[in-house]
Amino acid sequence: MNIKPCIIGLGYVGLPILAELSKKFNVMGYDIDKKRINSLGLHYDFNNELKKKDLLKIKQKNLTDNYQHIKRCNFYIVCVPTPVNKNKIPDIRLLKDTCKKLGKVLKKKDIIVFESTVFPGTSEDICAPILEKSSKLKNNKDFYICYSPERINPGDKEHVVKKIKKLIAIPNSNIKKKVLNVYSQITKKIVLSSSIKETELSKVIENIQRDLNIALMNEIYLFCDKTNLNFNNVLNQASTKWNFVKYNPGLVGGHCLPVDPYYFSHVAKKNGLKTNVTIAGRITNEFMCNFVIKKIKKEINLNKSFKKSSDKIIFAGLSYKKNVSDIRNSLALKIYKSFQRKNKNIFAFDPLISSEKIKNSISSDDLKSIKNVKYIIFLVYHDIFKKIFKKINKKIKIIKFFDNNI
Amino acid sequence: MNIKPCIIGLGYVGLPILAELSKKFNVMGYDIDKKRINSLGLHYDFNNELKKKDLLKIKQKNLTDNYQHIKRCNFYIVCVPTPVNKNKIPDIRLLKDTCKKLGKVLKKKDIIVFESTVFPGTSEDICAPILEKSSKLKNNKDFYICYSPERINPGDKEHVVKKIKKLIAIPNSNIKKKVLNVYSQITKKIVLSSSIKETELSKVIENIQRDLNIALMNEIYLFCDKTNLNFNNVLNQASTKWNFVKYNPGLVGGHCLPVDPYYFSHVAKKNGLKTNVTIAGRITNEFMCNFVIKKIKKEINLNKSFKKSSDKIIFAGLSYKKNVSDIRNSLALKIYKSFQRKNKNIFAFDPLISSEKIKNSISSDDLKSIKNVKYIIFLVYHDIFKKIFKKINKKIKIIKFFDNNI
Repeated sequence: MNIKPCIIGLGYVGLPILAELSKKFNVMGYDIDKKRINSLGLHYDFNNELKKKDLLKIKQKNLTDNYQHIKRCNFYIVCVPTPVNKNKIPDIRLLKDTCKKLGKVLKKKDIIVFESTVFPGTSEDICAPILEKSSKLKNNKDFYICYSPERINPGDKEHVVKKIKKLIAIPNSNIKKKVLNVYSQITKKIVLSSSIKETELSKVIENIQRDLNIALMNEIYLFCDKTNLNFNNVLNQASTKWNFVKYNPGLVGGHCLPVDPYYFSHVAKKNGLKTNVTIAGRITNEFMCNFVIKKIKKEINLNKSFKKSSDKIIFAGLSYKKNVSDIRNSLALKIYKSFQRKNKNIFAFDPLISSEKIKNSISSDDLKSIKNVKYIIFLVYHDIFKKIFKKINKKIKIIKFFDNNI
Repeated sequence: MNIKPCIIGLGYVGLPILAELSKKFNVMGYDIDKKRINSLGLHYDFNNELKKKDLLKIKQKNLTDNYQHIKRCNFYIVCVPTPVNKNKIPDIRLLKDTCKKLGKVLKKKDIIVFESTVFPGTSEDICAPILEKSSKLKNNKDFYICYSPERINPGDKEHVVKKIKKLIAIPNSNIKKKVLNVYSQITKKIVLSSSIKETELSKVIENIQRDLNIALMNEIYLFCDKTNLNFNNVLNQASTKWNFVKYNPGLVGGHCLPVDPYYFSHVAKKNGLKTNVTIAGRITNEFMCNFVIKKIKKEINLNKSFKKSSDKIIFAGLSYKKNVSDIRNSLALKIYKSFQRKNKNIFAFDPLISSEKIKNSISSDDLKSIKNVKYIIFLVYHDIFKKIFKKINKKIKIIKFFDNNI
C-alpha cells in the first residue's frame, strides 16, 4: 500500500516534518489556522525556523484547513500544541478535538503517530478511545497508534530534526516497517520503543530535568545577589568538577519547560503521588519574574517625576529566549508589560518580533532616532544585539540580567 | 622560609593529602583519634582508600594527636568533618574547636588552608575570628587563610586527588607562590580564586546539583513503580536526547550529598532566603528509605509465622554506596536496622565492612554455611557481589532495588 502522510498542526513541530517528508512523499499538511495555511502556501514561515529552500518544497495544493481534504491520507502525524491553562492544568482540548475530527476520516489500516508532548497515558487512554468512538474502528486492530516525541529546539540550528536521535514507540510490530519507512526520511537516528507510556514519560522528564536544573541555578543566583557574591565566578568554579553540569540561570519561558512539569505533576497527582522536586523547580523559575521586576524598580526609581519628564526606557529582547521570535510564555514580555502599562515612556525593541505583537514597540529605525533614552534594559540578549548596540550613548544606563546568558 | 606542612584531620580527605605531600615535604599529620594515629603508623588505613605504597611513605614519627607536636609547622591544611546534627543544622563544632586549638600554636606568617566543606562565610567570618582570638594575631596581616574544597570521591579510583582539578581561593596574592608550592605537589590542575566565599559556595552547589538530580530520578522512579512502567526504559530513552544528563535513582547517603544541601540552606535562611529547590531534593531522597522499607515489607510478608520459622533473610550491601566501606549516613544500613531490630532471623552481609560495626553481621564463611535463607535483599550492589553471588540456591528469592545501579 502506498503511504500518504499527513501532518496535522503546522507549527514549530509539524512544519519541519512536513518539509522533510515533502522530499519523498506527496504529503498533506493540515492546520486549523487559515492564515498559517495561506502564508505557508506563499512559502513564508512567520516563525522564521525553516530555510526558504525547504519551504519551497511544500506544495500549496497540499495545504488545507479542511479535514475532508486529508481523508485520502493513511499516515497521520499529530503535532498540535498541548499547553496548560491558567491553573497550570494540562489543556489537551485541541488534541482531543483533533482526534474527534480525525476519527471521522479514519479508515482501516491507518496509522496515527502523536508527536505532541503529553502526560503518560494520554495517547492510549484518552486519544485512542476518542478515535475509536469517532471512527467506529478498533485501535490496534483496524488502526494503529504510535508515539514519537518532538525534540524541536527553536533557534538551535545545530540540533535540527534531521540530525538528532528520535524516539518512536511502536506497540504493534506489524506496522514497524511502514512507520520506519516514513520516519527514516525525517532522521536516520531512530530509537525504538515498544511502550507508548514509557516514551511519553521519557519526553516530559527531559524538560523537567532542564527546568529543575535552571531553577537550582536561579536559587543560587538569588543567594549570590543577596550576599553580593559573583554568581558567574561561583558557577565557573563549580564547573571545574568532573561531574558538574553547567546550566545557566534565567527567565524560563516558551512552550516546553514551563509546561511539561505540570503535565507530569498532573498525572502523578492522579496516581496519588506528589511531585515536590518537579514543582519546586517551577515555583522558583516563575518567581524569577518578580525578582527581576523588583530589581529593575530599584534601579530605575520609576516615580512621578520620571513620568513627568521626557526620559524614556527601552526594554530590548522580549522573546522567551535568545535568537527566537517566539513570545509564548515569555517572562521578558511579562516583565515589560508590567512596566509598560504604568508608563507611556516605556518602549519595547525586538527586531525578531513583529512590532504589532507588542504594544509600544519600536523599529530599528525608531531606535536610531529616539531621543532622551535614560535606560536600556536587556532581558534577552539576541546575538544580533552585539551589532545593533555596538555604540550606545554613554549617558544611557544599561541594565543587563543573567550576564552569563549574554 | 622552609615550608613545613601539617594536615589536621586524617580521614578520607586528609590522608590522601598527607600521603601526597609526604613525597616532597617533611609533613606532619594530626588526628584527634589516637586509634587512627596508631593504625596509620602501622601503615593500615581502615577506610581502605589508600594504596599500601602510599601509606608506607607516611612516617610514624610525624603522626600525632597532640597540638604541641605540630607547633613547628607553618602551613596547616584543615580537613576535619563538618556534618549536620539531628535537626539538619550544620555542626561545625569540630571545625571551631580545631581553630581554637590551632590558634594556640599559630605564629606569624603561618598559612591555614581549609578543605572542610562549609557554608559561604564560615572560613572568613567564623574560623578567622576564632584563630585571631586564640592566637592574638591578625588575619591577613600576621597569618593568612585560604580555602580549597576537597573533591574526594570514595571508592572512585579514577578521580583521585592527583588527577582532578582543584580549586584554591587565595585572597592575599603575597602568599600565592607558597600555597602553589605546596598544592602543586597534590595536583598539577589548580584553578585559582580570589574569593573564599565564592569558592565555599561553589563546593556546596556541586553536591546539591547531584543530590537534586538523583532526587528527580527518585521522583520519576516512584511514579514508574506506582504505574508499572519500566523506569530503566524511560531513563534510557530520555538519555538519547543530546542535552539530557543521566543520573540514577537510589539511596543517597554518605557525608556529602545528605549534608551539603543543609549547609547552603542554613546560610540562605540566615540571609532571609528559602531554598525550596534544594530542600525538595533532600526530602525526596530521605523519603526513599521509607519507600524501600515498605516495598520490602510487602514482598517478604514478615509476619508472626515467619518469626516462628527458621527462615532467614540476608541484607547484602550495607555501606552508603557501592564499593566503599563507609557507613556514614547509610540508608541501606538504616533500612537493615529497621528490620533487624524486629527479627532475629535477619542478617547483614557486607565483606567491605568490619563485622563488629553491624549487628548480626555474617562473614563470607558464614554465608557459605548458613541454612534456610529465604530472601537475599540487595540494597547496595558491590562489584564483588557478582563473584560472591555467582551461584545462588534457586529456592532463595532475590530482591534488588535500583537495578540500574547494579
